[in-house]
Amino acid sequence: MPAASLNFWFDFASTYSYMAAARVRAKATEAKVSVRFRPFLLGPIFKAQGWDTSPFNLYEAKGRYMWRDLERECADLDLPFRKPEPFPQNSLLAARVALVALDHPWGDDFCVGVFRAEFGEGKRIDDPATLAGILESLKVEARPVLEAAQSDVNKPRLRRETERAQQLGVFGAPTFTTADGELFWGNDRLEQALRWTKRAA
Amino acid sequence: MPAASLNFWFDFASTYSYMAAARVRAKATEAKVSVRFRPFLLGPIFKAQGWDTSPFNLYEAKGRYMWRDLERECADLDLPFRKPEPFPQNSLLAARVALVALDHPWGDDFCVGVFRAEFGEGKRIDDPATLAGILESLKVEARPVLEAAQSDVNKPRLRRETERAQQLGVFGAPTFTTADGELFWGNDRLEQALRWTKRAA
Repeated sequence: MPAASLNFWFDFASTYSYMAAARVRAKATEAKVSVRFRPFLLGPIFKAQGWDTSPFNLYEAKGRYMWRDLERECADLDLPFRKPEPFPQNSLLAARVALVALDHPWGDDFCVGVFRAEFGEGKRIDDPATLAGILESLKVEARPVLEAAQSDVNKPRLRRETERAQQLGVFGAPTFTTADGELFWGNDRLEQALRWTKRAA
Repeated sequence: MPAASLNFWFDFASTYSYMAAARVRAKATEAKVSVRFRPFLLGPIFKAQGWDTSPFNLYEAKGRYMWRDLERECADLDLPFRKPEPFPQNSLLAARVALVALDHPWGDDFCVGVFRAEFGEGKRIDDPATLAGILESLKVEARPVLEAAQSDVNKPRLRRETERAQQLGVFGAPTFTTADGELFWGNDRLEQALRWTKRAA
């Protein structure tokens, strides 16, 4: 019997996706569930909701709260945290590279590395040098990966993934979706999503 | 030394406040923290954010998700749940009555009863008969309480509480605020708010 599987949808610009990415593999191993990392872009989905930036920028009190909440949560998880400048970061290039990376065994590590660079080390993820540095730390030659990421074959893949997320009802990130059609939104729902996946397997 | 104390801000129309109200007293007793029930109105706060109804009505995918999430969460908590019609309910009268009720030892029970009537039994909380029924189930004579609720002394109290919530940075419900200025948003943050309150005491 194949292991029960959970889809982990995230946008690299998303603050709570940072925490989920840092936690998801250990929690999934514990629950004996396999996890598929699925980067997508929130931008087109937010646009369809009438937003032109992060809701944390649009709604001031909510934004102020989110930064404090993140600070407290990261402290509890012992995760380094600093607010990216600017926020949100442009996550297009990182997501394209991640799709290429995820064809390889080091794909998940790359994704976790991007989040750490952005939210733990204050690096800009729209800078190819940041992404190249992460690839190199994984002993992967950066240039061919970055070129494949920007190819005409790869670009539509990201669009299709984003469309797929939208079809599934994804409206924010992180989101977890199961084979039997359940959707769980937010880092806070990771444990519940894993329990559900295990039960349904 | 007085017990550590946590403010529990809620709007009776708020779905996640229903779950928080059902859980907060047992959890607070466990944590040896005292809780102050503070009804307010989300309407003016949402209006200041440019919303004329619940965000769950404004954003379709988010709304669809919320009802499913609530169903799953209530099942886990063994709480009865049905979607109120209409949603959101008009919570003005219930909040006014609650402020009067909270001057009495049965105030918290009244609030929990309103939530149960609305989300567990499908009753309309803008109907004085619903509120009278809850008061009577608590052995309280309904008429004087309903009259005091609609008095010119009580109405401004609710406005002041709502203004106070807004000053504290409340942008949704439920919200928990502490004496040392921390704010925790959502039923999911109840445990953390209690831990914080205990630690800071």
